[in-house]
Amino acid sequence: LKMYGEIITIGDELTSGRTVDLNSWYAAGRLTASGLGVIRVTSVGDDDQMVSKALKRASASSRFVIVTGGLGPTEDDMTCEIAAHALNRPLRLDTQMLKKIQEYVALRGMEMTPFFEKMAYMPEGSRMLNPEGETCGFSVQAEDVRFYFLPGVPEQTRHLMDTVVLPELLRLYERLPVVEQRVIKVYGIDEIRIAQRLRHIKPKTEGVILGFYPNFPETHITLSLKGSGEEVVTARLDAVAGEIKKILGAYVFSTQGETMEAVAGRLLLEKGVTVALAESCTGGLIGHRLTNVPGSSRYVEGGVIAYSNHLKTALIDVNEETLKQHGAVSAETAQEMAKGVRGRTGSHLGLAVTGIAGPEGGSKEKPVGTVYLGLSQGDGLYSKGYRFRGNREQVKQNSAAMALDWIRRHLNGDPFLPGI
Amino acid sequence: LKMYGEIITIGDELTSGRTVDLNSWYAAGRLTASGLGVIRVTSVGDDDQMVSKALKRASASSRFVIVTGGLGPTEDDMTCEIAAHALNRPLRLDTQMLKKIQEYVALRGMEMTPFFEKMAYMPEGSRMLNPEGETCGFSVQAEDVRFYFLPGVPEQTRHLMDTVVLPELLRLYERLPVVEQRVIKVYGIDEIRIAQRLRHIKPKTEGVILGFYPNFPETHITLSLKGSGEEVVTARLDAVAGEIKKILGAYVFSTQGETMEAVAGRLLLEKGVTVALAESCTGGLIGHRLTNVPGSSRYVEGGVIAYSNHLKTALIDVNEETLKQHGAVSAETAQEMAKGVRGRTGSHLGLAVTGIAGPEGGSKEKPVGTVYLGLSQGDGLYSKGYRFRGNREQVKQNSAAMALDWIRRHLNGDPFLPGI
Repeated sequence: LKMYGEIITIGDELTSGRTVDLNSWYAAGRLTASGLGVIRVTSVGDDDQMVSKALKRASASSRFVIVTGGLGPTEDDMTCEIAAHALNRPLRLDTQMLKKIQEYVALRGMEMTPFFEKMAYMPEGSRMLNPEGETCGFSVQAEDVRFYFLPGVPEQTRHLMDTVVLPELLRLYERLPVVEQRVIKVYGIDEIRIAQRLRHIKPKTEGVILGFYPNFPETHITLSLKGSGEEVVTARLDAVAGEIKKILGAYVFSTQGETMEAVAGRLLLEKGVTVALAESCTGGLIGHRLTNVPGSSRYVEGGVIAYSNHLKTALIDVNEETLKQHGAVSAETAQEMAKGVRGRTGSHLGLAVTGIAGPEGGSKEKPVGTVYLGLSQGDGLYSKGYRFRGNREQVKQNSAAMALDWIRRHLNGDPFLPGI
Repeated sequence: LKMYGEIITIGDELTSGRTVDLNSWYAAGRLTASGLGVIRVTSVGDDDQMVSKALKRASASSRFVIVTGGLGPTEDDMTCEIAAHALNRPLRLDTQMLKKIQEYVALRGMEMTPFFEKMAYMPEGSRMLNPEGETCGFSVQAEDVRFYFLPGVPEQTRHLMDTVVLPELLRLYERLPVVEQRVIKVYGIDEIRIAQRLRHIKPKTEGVILGFYPNFPETHITLSLKGSGEEVVTARLDAVAGEIKKILGAYVFSTQGETMEAVAGRLLLEKGVTVALAESCTGGLIGHRLTNVPGSSRYVEGGVIAYSNHLKTALIDVNEETLKQHGAVSAETAQEMAKGVRGRTGSHLGLAVTGIAGPEGGSKEKPVGTVYLGLSQGDGLYSKGYRFRGNREQVKQNSAAMALDWIRRHLNGDPFLPGI
């Protein structure tokens, strides 16, 4: 176990659930991707005793320890003092650090206070990670364990992880076993059914560790394989991924870890198809996701957030008669929205979503979660209804995912997922 | 410390950074809000030894332990076996559980496999948490420590936390000290400047614990106070929150923990103002956020995702001349977009955002992160440019937050945040 490390994140905001711990998530992901194992992640509050315990335990079981939080200028930032005590290293004033802080404070026209000064005291033997930059952090070697202390601010932690900590660790542990990982992403079929369908491939996956992870509204299947010869490992994973893809078919939207919007975007770009959206219940979420992909302006025209019935008629030419007769949440309206937004924008493909996200607005025939999609391209005009479970946010998320799935399946010539 | 509990989350997806640990976040938040302290959160992989260590350590330092993950039907779900071993309780077949699983499998037309059967074995003395429902989970008392084992699926964990675990724990520990917490949310000023501005209120906050948490792109200030007389505690927190609000002024957008979209929505509703959006670089994110609020159809008309220049002219009447002369990312274009979307939709307020989210598209005069906002209501027409730091996603997030901030400040009669 001595080859592995661990992560300790500090802050009352973590143990009280005010903040999601994105620092440990990021650090764990980067370390794993670099072939460095993470055996444990521990979060403790701004509490002398608990922080001290966590540091001592880590020094007994890990080779490297990433610690985040508690380095700032406010009163609850006490990591330096606690670390000094737990690692038996008295606090020492770092003059280089003091100078850096003084410059920082002066540059911003602020006043130098004892809180800022406090930030310049570090456990004896510490080394600043980033002496030139604005971000503070330090490392200290305690016997055969290397500690990295990083700030709690996610952007700063990420910056230091990527530019200093990882390169340093990789230099220290050059001969790590190669661990290759593949993520197969699936939409429209649940974890249990996937496991059932895959149970017969067992003999073909020897050595490959399979994991199944619901990742709402998707499911992710991970393949991991250790080995020192990279080519063999890659070929092995390719074979198993291919086998899984063969069994699950179009449920698989990526074997390369891509997002749904990246897959849809890649297909649109490859086929030279532009898309415009008519979003009702999703409120703009599909557009947001599609435009998260750099370069998406090459295939996303934009579209209309047709939230009110008025905008459905005024901006994308849905017939008032259709709304009256079938309702805003219907196959007919979804079709007219898709056709309308295509006509108004001149895009190749028009995609529409209209539904009841809740908690209000449901009826017996159309309960909360009822969502219709429409798609128009060339002479083709499609629509289908779905019923999603969950709260407002989940219905929106599932509706947007289904819309992205429609783009992929449509451009690949695969049938849409069956609806209601 | 014996009055407090801890959380253990299990899964390779957590220690490898594939998944953000939302289970511990949710459980910690609910426990804290109920007055139950969480002293530690530990995540370990699907590893016999590490899980066992974590369980043993927890039983030595906590009164209750919430464990999530590893209860499913797949091969890597081994929590029951490990718990049985770590807590010295042999595995026993639970016939009630077996029956439940058989029914579940039959209902879905699936085949009963050894993996499903395995789920019916639990450590001796275990009690099913939810014998009637579909979600599995159990509790077991090991000496004076109560363990709760919950599935790793977030929705199921949340359901069991809310309906079974919390009510049970609250019955066990009736005489907990009341801990009241308040979150003051701030936008447009960073943690350090907040701490500087607030340093003089120290004598007025005695007993109240202040915390500062960057929560991109917002900053949250938390106030916590222990005490057994609820009214006194509330009054004390109100007073400190009022003091902070006085010092930070319009930077504070909520003292009640509301989201920016909820605050903007409340104001729109109160003042009877409807809003329409013209989104370029945000791609629909503002609409998505505004429509996350239940009942937002009462004030959100919708709008246009004017991602391409073509849609800016075709759908919301931006002059081609303006685009040519000033560019799509300019104060002039932002104004015309705001005015145009208002005209086309008939909403009271038109709000526009156009900018360069990157990584491409930047220039020397308009680097990545340059974003213009425009607002039109009645005779009023405003615009202003900002320069946001960060990657594509961060620029989008900050742009959307600023747009929501504009709605709030505009309707409150406060000046917009200063720009470039």
